[in-house]
Amino acid sequence: MHVYFFGAGKADGTKDDKNLLGGKGAGLAEMTNLGIPVPPGFTITTEVCTHYTQHGGVYPPDLKDDVQEALRRVEDLVGARFGDAANPLLVSVRSGARASMPGMMDTILNLGLNDDTCAGLVARTGDRRFALDAYRRFITMYSDIVLRVGRSRFEEALARRRAAANVQHDHQVPAEALAELVAEYKQIVREATGKPFPTDPAEQLWGAISAVFRSWNNDRAVTYRKMYDIPETWGTAVNVQAMVFGNQGEDCATGVAFTRDPSTGERRFFGEYLPNAQGEDVVAGIRTPLHLTRANGAGSLEERLPEAYASLVAVYQKLEKHFRDMQDIEFTVQRGKLWLLQTRNAKRTARAAVKVAVDMVAEGLIDRDTALLRVDPGTIDQLLHPTLDPKAPRKAIAKGLPASPGAVNGHVVFSAEEAEEEADKGRRVILVRTETSPEDISGMKVARGILTSRGGMTSHAAVVARGMGKCCVAGTTEIDVDEAKGQFTVRGTIVKRGDNITLDGSTGEVFLGEIPTIPATLFDEFKTVLKWADEVRRLKVRANADTPDDARIAREFGAEGIGLCRTEHMFFAPERIAAVREMILSADEAGRRAALAKILPMQREDFVGIFKAMEGLPVTIRLLDPPLHEFLPVEREDLEELAREMKVDYETLRRRRAALAEFNPMLGHRGCRLAITFPEIYEVQTQAIAEAAVEVARAGIKVIPEIMIPLVAVEEEIAKMRELVTRVCDAVFAAAGVRPDYTVGTMIELPRACVVADEIARHADFFSFGTNDLTQTVFGLSRDDAGKFLPAYVERGVLPKDPFVALDRGGVGAMMRIAIERGRKTKPRIKLGICGEHGGEPSSVEFCHEIGLDYVSCSPFRVPVARLVAGQSTVRGTAAISSTA
Amino acid sequence: MHVYFFGAGKADGTKDDKNLLGGKGAGLAEMTNLGIPVPPGFTITTEVCTHYTQHGGVYPPDLKDDVQEALRRVEDLVGARFGDAANPLLVSVRSGARASMPGMMDTILNLGLNDDTCAGLVARTGDRRFALDAYRRFITMYSDIVLRVGRSRFEEALARRRAAANVQHDHQVPAEALAELVAEYKQIVREATGKPFPTDPAEQLWGAISAVFRSWNNDRAVTYRKMYDIPETWGTAVNVQAMVFGNQGEDCATGVAFTRDPSTGERRFFGEYLPNAQGEDVVAGIRTPLHLTRANGAGSLEERLPEAYASLVAVYQKLEKHFRDMQDIEFTVQRGKLWLLQTRNAKRTARAAVKVAVDMVAEGLIDRDTALLRVDPGTIDQLLHPTLDPKAPRKAIAKGLPASPGAVNGHVVFSAEEAEEEADKGRRVILVRTETSPEDISGMKVARGILTSRGGMTSHAAVVARGMGKCCVAGTTEIDVDEAKGQFTVRGTIVKRGDNITLDGSTGEVFLGEIPTIPATLFDEFKTVLKWADEVRRLKVRANADTPDDARIAREFGAEGIGLCRTEHMFFAPERIAAVREMILSADEAGRRAALAKILPMQREDFVGIFKAMEGLPVTIRLLDPPLHEFLPVEREDLEELAREMKVDYETLRRRRAALAEFNPMLGHRGCRLAITFPEIYEVQTQAIAEAAVEVARAGIKVIPEIMIPLVAVEEEIAKMRELVTRVCDAVFAAAGVRPDYTVGTMIELPRACVVADEIARHADFFSFGTNDLTQTVFGLSRDDAGKFLPAYVERGVLPKDPFVALDRGGVGAMMRIAIERGRKTKPRIKLGICGEHGGEPSSVEFCHEIGLDYVSCSPFRVPVARLVAGQSTVRGTAAISSTA
Repeated sequence: MHVYFFGAGKADGTKDDKNLLGGKGAGLAEMTNLGIPVPPGFTITTEVCTHYTQHGGVYPPDLKDDVQEALRRVEDLVGARFGDAANPLLVSVRSGARASMPGMMDTILNLGLNDDTCAGLVARTGDRRFALDAYRRFITMYSDIVLRVGRSRFEEALARRRAAANVQHDHQVPAEALAELVAEYKQIVREATGKPFPTDPAEQLWGAISAVFRSWNNDRAVTYRKMYDIPETWGTAVNVQAMVFGNQGEDCATGVAFTRDPSTGERRFFGEYLPNAQGEDVVAGIRTPLHLTRANGAGSLEERLPEAYASLVAVYQKLEKHFRDMQDIEFTVQRGKLWLLQTRNAKRTARAAVKVAVDMVAEGLIDRDTALLRVDPGTIDQLLHPTLDPKAPRKAIAKGLPASPGAVNGHVVFSAEEAEEEADKGRRVILVRTETSPEDISGMKVARGILTSRGGMTSHAAVVARGMGKCCVAGTTEIDVDEAKGQFTVRGTIVKRGDNITLDGSTGEVFLGEIPTIPATLFDEFKTVLKWADEVRRLKVRANADTPDDARIAREFGAEGIGLCRTEHMFFAPERIAAVREMILSADEAGRRAALAKILPMQREDFVGIFKAMEGLPVTIRLLDPPLHEFLPVEREDLEELAREMKVDYETLRRRRAALAEFNPMLGHRGCRLAITFPEIYEVQTQAIAEAAVEVARAGIKVIPEIMIPLVAVEEEIAKMRELVTRVCDAVFAAAGVRPDYTVGTMIELPRACVVADEIARHADFFSFGTNDLTQTVFGLSRDDAGKFLPAYVERGVLPKDPFVALDRGGVGAMMRIAIERGRKTKPRIKLGICGEHGGEPSSVEFCHEIGLDYVSCSPFRVPVARLVAGQSTVRGTAAISSTA
Repeated sequence: MHVYFFGAGKADGTKDDKNLLGGKGAGLAEMTNLGIPVPPGFTITTEVCTHYTQHGGVYPPDLKDDVQEALRRVEDLVGARFGDAANPLLVSVRSGARASMPGMMDTILNLGLNDDTCAGLVARTGDRRFALDAYRRFITMYSDIVLRVGRSRFEEALARRRAAANVQHDHQVPAEALAELVAEYKQIVREATGKPFPTDPAEQLWGAISAVFRSWNNDRAVTYRKMYDIPETWGTAVNVQAMVFGNQGEDCATGVAFTRDPSTGERRFFGEYLPNAQGEDVVAGIRTPLHLTRANGAGSLEERLPEAYASLVAVYQKLEKHFRDMQDIEFTVQRGKLWLLQTRNAKRTARAAVKVAVDMVAEGLIDRDTALLRVDPGTIDQLLHPTLDPKAPRKAIAKGLPASPGAVNGHVVFSAEEAEEEADKGRRVILVRTETSPEDISGMKVARGILTSRGGMTSHAAVVARGMGKCCVAGTTEIDVDEAKGQFTVRGTIVKRGDNITLDGSTGEVFLGEIPTIPATLFDEFKTVLKWADEVRRLKVRANADTPDDARIAREFGAEGIGLCRTEHMFFAPERIAAVREMILSADEAGRRAALAKILPMQREDFVGIFKAMEGLPVTIRLLDPPLHEFLPVEREDLEELAREMKVDYETLRRRRAALAEFNPMLGHRGCRLAITFPEIYEVQTQAIAEAAVEVARAGIKVIPEIMIPLVAVEEEIAKMRELVTRVCDAVFAAAGVRPDYTVGTMIELPRACVVADEIARHADFFSFGTNDLTQTVFGLSRDDAGKFLPAYVERGVLPKDPFVALDRGGVGAMMRIAIERGRKTKPRIKLGICGEHGGEPSSVEFCHEIGLDYVSCSPFRVPVARLVAGQSTVRGTAAISSTA
C-alpha cells in the first residue's frame, strides 16, 4: 500500500508505523484513531521515496490512482473539491522522515490556489484579504521550495508594498495591494524560470510531492544522514492534508504547546499562540505570541477562546497519557474549532528530562527502566556546571572545541605566572595560550577557564581542564594568540591582557565581555535517576584523580574507586620539579637515586592522602609515563634561568635538553621504557606506594593499591616490571611486618599490547585500556596535531565523529576486542577497565558495557554521566535479551 | 641412556643424535663408526643437563655408575688407568651443545693429573718437561673454569718464570722452573679459594662435568640463547675423551683444517698446524702455525710427517663425502699417529658458501635444493658491495648501526652544499650529519658514504642510503657532530672537515684514515644460485625505486617490478621545490593548482622514464606522503633566504611554517590526509601518471601502473581516493583515446587499516604492507627516537631483535595476518605485497612467504638477497610438507 489515509476518526496507520509513515504521519494517524480532531489527509509512504530514488525519479505505476482516490476521500469529508473554482479544497504538503531531519524540504501551505480558486475562496469566505494573503504565501513557499526561485525577491517586493502602504506588518497590507503583489510574484517566477507559475492544482501537488522526495538526497540531508548514521534506504514520507485556517478572523488562532514545561520539566501546560494567524507566523517571530493559559498573562487562549482551550486541554492530557511521554503539539483553531496538526515527543532540557522522567514514574505512567532511558546522557553535563543565562544577549567572536563544559567569565591573561599574580589579587582570570603544557598547571589551577588556539579534544589543556572540572575551549584555530605582545586577535578584533571575556565550554563559544550565568544544582530528581542507574548497572564507575582533593570530589560524585592516578602531576609541583630536574641531569644511577630520594617522602604523602580519601576502594596508580624532556623548559631564557638556579653550565643543560629532544615524543622514550633504562625511577615510586600503604593500613584504614605499568608493548617489559614491583613491595612489607594486598597490571594502549595480550596477561592482574594513546596509535593520529585536519574529516563525512571524543568501535574497539579475547585466553577472570577520556563519553561507556569491561574510569565530573549510561546499557541489554526471547 | 660410549670403531650414537649428544659428541660418534681414528671416550647427554638444571644440581641416580663403566672401557682401550700413579689415563672434558654456543665453558685438557700421576707420566714418557707442562696447563684451565680463580695470576707467574729464565716462549721454560711453577700455582689456588687444589682425579672429573652443566645457565649463555631463540630445555652435552698428545716430541703435532678454502670456496685442502704442541697453542697465536701442504710453503706437515699427512688427506675426503658438506676438523698427531678430535660443518665466507654449494651440485654431492639452503642470505650483502681488505690493519674509533653495507673512505664534509662543492672538485667525500633530512639528498647523492650520530636502521639516512646502494653508518651515538664548527668528536679525538675516514657499512665501524678495500663482483656461481632460487620460488621480488636510473639497476638485479616508487623525492629536486613551496604558501585552491601545474610536466617526464625502464612490469606509484612542512627549511637563516627568493614577507613565511609544525609529524597531516584536505595534490599527480602512461603506451611499450594511496585508516579515505583517481584517469584516457590498464590500491601501514581491511578491500585492488610505519604504530615507537633506548632493549633481552630490522612476527606480523584474513574475506584474490624495509631482510622475507604474500619489494641492492630467501623458503616449505607426508 503506497498511500495511508486518515480522517473522521479512522486511519489506515498507527503510531507503530513510523518506519513507513514517518514520525509526523504516524502521529497524525494515531491522533485520528484516538478521535482527536485532525484535518483529513493521507501519507505517501517512505517506500515510495525509496522507489522514486532507486528508479531515477519514477513513481510506482499505481501511485497516481492511489493518491487520486485518497484525495477524493478528503474532498468528501471536507465537502470541497481540489481545483474547484467554486468551492476549492486547499491542502498542505509536508515531509516527515522516521527521524527528524534538518535540511529537508519542510512545508507548503495553501496548495491548490490559482486565480480561479482564489476567487472561489473569496466567494466562499467573503474575505478577499484572507484569500489573497493565502495566495501570496503559497506562491512564495512553492517558488522557493519547488521552483527554487529563492525567497529574497518575494520578500523585497512585499517590503516595497509595506512601504507604499506606509504600514509596519504584513497583515496590515491592504487587499488591493496584495492583489497587485500576487501579479508581481507571478512575474518574478516567469522571469526567474522562463515559465509561468503553474496554475493546475494537480501539477502543483505532484511538483510538491516530488520536491519532498528529491530533498531526501540534497547535499545537506546526505551530510546529515552520514553524521548520524541514518541509512539512505529509510527514505521520507509525504503528508498531504486538508488546510485549516487560523487566519480567518478573531475566532481563529494557531499555536504550539508542550504538555509540560520543556525548560524545567514542571507539570504545567505550556505554550504560545497567535490569534488570527497562519502557522508560519508563529515561527517567523514578527508578532509576539501570547500565552495559552490565563495564569501566564493577559490575552491568553483560555480567556479569548475558552471552548477551544478546554478542548486543547482535554487533547493534551489524552495524548500524554496515551504516549506516556511529554508531547510537543501544533494546533489551529478555525472559527472556534480546534484542529491538531502534529504531536511528537517533546525536546526538553536535561533538567526537564530528569524531572519529567522521575515525575512520570511517580504518576505511574512509566516504570524506572523506561525513565532511565528517557534521560539523554549527552546533555546532563549541563546539570553539573554553570550555564550561560539563555535570556542574556550575546554574540560569539569565535568558536573552538567544547573541550570541558561550564560557562565562565574573567580577565584575559597569557601566562601561568600572570594567572597566579592576578588570582592572588582576587581577580577572576581566563588563561589564554596557544597550547598548554605541564608547566602551566599552576596557572590553570587558579584560572576560571582556559582558552587555547591549538589542540583537540584530548589535548593537554582539554584533559587537564576536564580533570579539574574547569571550563575549557580548545583548538580555537580562528584566534591568533601572541603571548609576547599579550593579546589575541580574531578577524580584526584585538583582545588585550586584562580584557573581559566569557567562555561557554559546552558549545566552544567565546564572547566579549561578561555574560551572566546560571549556577548548577544537584537537584533531588537527578539523584533519584542516578540511584536507579546504580541499582541496575553491572559496569563499575571509577574516577581519574591525581590528588586527595580530586579523590574526595570523585567519591562525592559516586566513584567506586580511582581508575587512574597519574603520578607525573606529582613531579611537576614547584617544590619537587627541582629534584626531578636534578635526577634528569644526573650522569649516573647514584646521582639519580640521590635526587629521587628527595621526592620519595613527598610522593609517599600524596599516596597516603589518596588512600585515606578512598578508604576501602581500589586505587590504580600509574607509574611515571611522560618523556623526561617534558620536565625541562623549552625556551632559551627559561633554560638559562634554570642553569643559574641549578648552578650548572648553560651549555651542559642545553646539550642534555637537546639529547632528550624527540621527533615524535608520543612514540618516544616514555612509559615503562623509562624504567627499562632507569629502573630506579619505578623502584622509588613503588617504594612510596608500598610505604604509604603500610602507613595507612597501620591506621586501620583498608587500602587497595593497584600498581599500573604504562606503555607495555612486549611481554618482557611487564615481566621485568612485575618482578621489580614485587621485589620492592616485598622488601618494604617485610621490614614493616604489614602486608597489604596489592595487584600489578598494565595499561593496554598500544596495538601490539592488544595482539600479544595473551602473553602480557601472564604477568598482569588487570588490563586498563588507555584509549587516548590507543586511538593515537591505531589511527596513527597525533591528538595534538589532528586539529588541523580532523574537523575537515568529520565535516566531509570521512569520519562520523572525532575518535578522541567517541570511541571508534570499528578500529580501536576492534583492537580492544582482540585484547580481551586473547587476554582472557590466558587469564579468564582478568580484571578489565578503561581509563582513557572515553570512560566518560556516553556512546563509549555503552560500548565498554557491551564488550564486558568490569569498570570505566573518567574525570570526577563525568562520573554521574557514566553511572547513568552504565544503567541505561544494562536496561537496553535486558530489553534486547527479552525481546529476543 | 645417560652415557654414550665411542671407541675402537664403534659408537653408541651417530651423527643423527645431535639433539642428545650435541654437535661435537655426534661428530665424534659418527667418525668412530666410520673407522676414523678417534681417541676413545664418552658423551653425557643433554638430557642429563636438563635433569641437573631442573633438580637444582642433582644428577640422575644411576649416572655415576654409567660414567664409571664408560671410563673403565676407555681405560681398557687405552691400556691405562684413571688416577693410576704408575700408568695414568688423562682425559679432556668439553661441552658440546646442539648449536655452537659462545659463552659456555669450553675445554679442560690433561684432567687426571696430580703430583702422583704426574710422576707416573714422567716415568711412562721419560719426558719430565712434557709432564710438568701438561700439569701446569691443567691447573690453569681447571682453576679458571671450575674454581673461577681467573687466568691472570697464573699468567703473571708464568711471565715471571720466563723472565727469570730469560726466554721468550713458554715452551722454552725449563723443566725445573715448571716444577716450581706448579707449586706456585697450587699456592695461588689455595689463597684464592681457601682450599687446596683437588688431587683426586674423580673429584676433578665431576667438578669439570658440573662446571659444563652450570655454564649452560650462566649470564652470557642465557643472553645468547634469548637472542637466537634457543630454548633453555635443549641443554648441553659433556664429552669426556682420552687425551692424545701433540706435544710429546717432533713426531707429534696438532692442527686444524678445512676441507676446502673457507675464504674463497676453492676445492683445496687448507689448514695450519704446530709441530710438538697442544691444541690451545694453535689458538693462542704465540707461535706462528705452519701450512699443511707442501704447495703452501716450507715446513709443511706433508713434508715433515708424510704418513700422518696421507692419513689426514684420506680422512678429510672421507668426511666430506660422508657429510656432503665442507668440514672443519681438529686433529692431533701423537708419535706419528693421526687422531681426529672434532669434525663439523665449516664456517665460510659468503663467497665460499656460494662456490662450495654450486661445486658440490656439480660434483653430485648434493642437489640444487640443498645447495640453495647452504647459502646464508644474511651474508651475501658482502658480495654486492666492496669490503675492507681483511689483511689491512685497523682500529675503529666508533661503532654505529650497520645501516647500509659497503666499505668506503673519503674526506669528511658536514653539509650537502659542501659535499657537492668538494665532489665537483673531484674529491671523494663522506657526509657526516647529526641526522639527514630530505634537503640533504643532493649531498648524499655525491657522497661516497654517510655517517650520522642519530637515527636508527630505518632513519632517513639509512633508508635513502640503502635505496642508493650507498654505504651508511647511522645512529653512531658516541660521536658528537658540531656542524657549525665543522668537526666531530669521539672520546677526545677530534675529526675535522677534510680529514680522511673509512666507514664499514656492514659492521657499523668508523676508522681514521684510509683502509684499503676489495671490490665486489657478481661471479658466475652466485648468478647460478640466484637462477636456481628463481626457478623454485613462489614469492615475486620487486624493488623500491624512485628514478629511471634506480629502476634500471633494480631490473639488472632481477627485480620483477617496482613495488614502491615514492613521489616525494621528485618534489625535492632543486628546480621543483620552489613550485612545491609556492603551493604550500598559497592561500587557496586556485593558487595551489597554479603551482602544481608547474610540477605536472616534470612529474610526467619522471613517470615516462620509469615506465620505459620497467617495460612490461608493474610499477607501484605511491602518491605524496610526507607532511608539507618537510618542504620548508627549519633554520631561521634558511627561512629568511627563502623569503627573499620567494619575495614574501619573512613573518608570513615564519607563521606558515609555524602553523604547519607538528608535535608528532609521524602521526600528523600526511599521506592521504593531505589529499582529503587538498585533493588537487593527488589529482595533479594522478594526471601526471595517466598522461605518462598514455605517452608510453602510444610508443608501443607495455605499461602497468599501480596507483597506491598511503596512510589509509578509514574506508571512506580509500573510497574517496579511488573515486578521485578513477575520475582523473578516465578524463585523461578519454581525451587521449588510449586506455592503459591500471589498478588502485593502498598501503597497509596503520593498525586500524589492518582491523578494517575487509572494508578497505572493497575499494582496493591491492594491499602493500608498509611495515616501517606499521612497526612504528604497532609498537608506538618512533624510529627516529628509538635509538635512545632500543639498543638497551635488545641488549637486555627485552626484545630479541630491532623490530625495524627484522619484522616482529608476534606483533606486527600478527597485525598483518589479521589484515590478510579480513582483506581476503572481502576480496579473496586481492594482491598482497610488502614495501617496507623488511622486504629485503632474510627472516622477514621468509615470513612474507609463510603468510602468503604475492611479492616483496626492497632496495635494488637487496633484490638478490630477497630472491635467494624466497627460493629457500619454498624449498623449506616443500621439505616441511614432504616430511609431514
